[in-house]
Amino acid sequence: MVKPAEGLRERRRRETRRSIHSAALRLALAHGFDKVTVEMISEEAGVSPRTFFNYFGSKEAAVARGPAGPDPRALEAFAAAGPAEPREVLAELAALITADLSKNPPLRAELHAVMEISRTTPGVAAAFLAQLDDFQRTLAGAVARRLGDGGGGGEGGTDGGPGEPDETAALIAALAMAAVRTGLERWKSAAPRSDDSPVPYVEHSAALLRALLTP
Amino acid sequence: MVKPAEGLRERRRRETRRSIHSAALRLALAHGFDKVTVEMISEEAGVSPRTFFNYFGSKEAAVARGPAGPDPRALEAFAAAGPAEPREVLAELAALITADLSKNPPLRAELHAVMEISRTTPGVAAAFLAQLDDFQRTLAGAVARRLGDGGGGGEGGTDGGPGEPDETAALIAALAMAAVRTGLERWKSAAPRSDDSPVPYVEHSAALLRALLTP
Repeated sequence: MVKPAEGLRERRRRETRRSIHSAALRLALAHGFDKVTVEMISEEAGVSPRTFFNYFGSKEAAVARGPAGPDPRALEAFAAAGPAEPREVLAELAALITADLSKNPPLRAELHAVMEISRTTPGVAAAFLAQLDDFQRTLAGAVARRLGDGGGGGEGGTDGGPGEPDETAALIAALAMAAVRTGLERWKSAAPRSDDSPVPYVEHSAALLRALLTP
Repeated sequence: MVKPAEGLRERRRRETRRSIHSAALRLALAHGFDKVTVEMISEEAGVSPRTFFNYFGSKEAAVARGPAGPDPRALEAFAAAGPAEPREVLAELAALITADLSKNPPLRAELHAVMEISRTTPGVAAAFLAQLDDFQRTLAGAVARRLGDGGGGGEGGTDGGPGEPDETAALIAALAMAAVRTGLERWKSAAPRSDDSPVPYVEHSAALLRALLTP
């Protein structure tokens, strides 16, 4: 029964994170980013400042809202799924990120607003890049575990120093992210319809990656 | 005789570009970025402002100095090299970028200075990202030609609309760049020695990519 409870908690976390981000964005658009405080964002989102800081380290990070996930359970299952060829691990990782994104896709209007604010507020752009880096590092850690311990054990894994497996893991995480971002870029530059979703674009990139890797 | 002449011209272009960048960086560190003008940079580098603008669109771009290349001849040879599996094209592209980087590798001290200036000057960070995007788009164009016209003809190539081949080309360019950047990141976070080169790190990433793609 533990797993379903975790799933619900994870969903609630996503929703809270999303509403803090939306509140931060609304306030930044209404008053200008410099005028907005963490207190204002917390009040608008209906959470305490303490809760705010469980989700974001700063108002810059709240406006940026880089990737939150991945779902810890999905990542754990991926890391513990046992041996596979690196190419297969790469394709699986791209599929995992895609599934994660599809649970909480960005909205076109919000993305454009974030880009607009980033243009004039370097801290927001920097926060977004830092969030992407964190996310990629988390993925690389899971890949390293997957490549390190072939077996299925959950707590196993290697914590070896910087060597070939870690480099391969970092490379695989970077490649999977590049594939997902290719899909997102395509969506961003597609004819704008405010209601469309990036999910089919990202799924298509992941499918192309899989085809590219298949002998 | 045309090809050697192009090679020399290309080398001169690289050297001029590098010295404009170094001049811009020296002046920005000495006087603060805001105080520096295109005229000052041009004088320090010993070129006319007109020449400056042949290399960089702004003083932000001169300080950022994203990737200049690739060497047009190497890119042309790649694009016209005839049919190959997409996986093979990806490995070749990573090798091409690596060779290009090794002709003109960044210096650790300069990279740190650029990062430091970017932190406080959003225009420099934006210029760097725009240069990376341009570079990646150039690569994607060459990959699309390679995938489109199987044959060896120089001027051939497809200019088809946005379809599967273009998407695969964009994906391949993004993956090759991700591999190169993985090597650069590793160099950046390695124990700093001001005289070491990123080239072995990037070559290693390219080799890992090739291994990963090989069945």
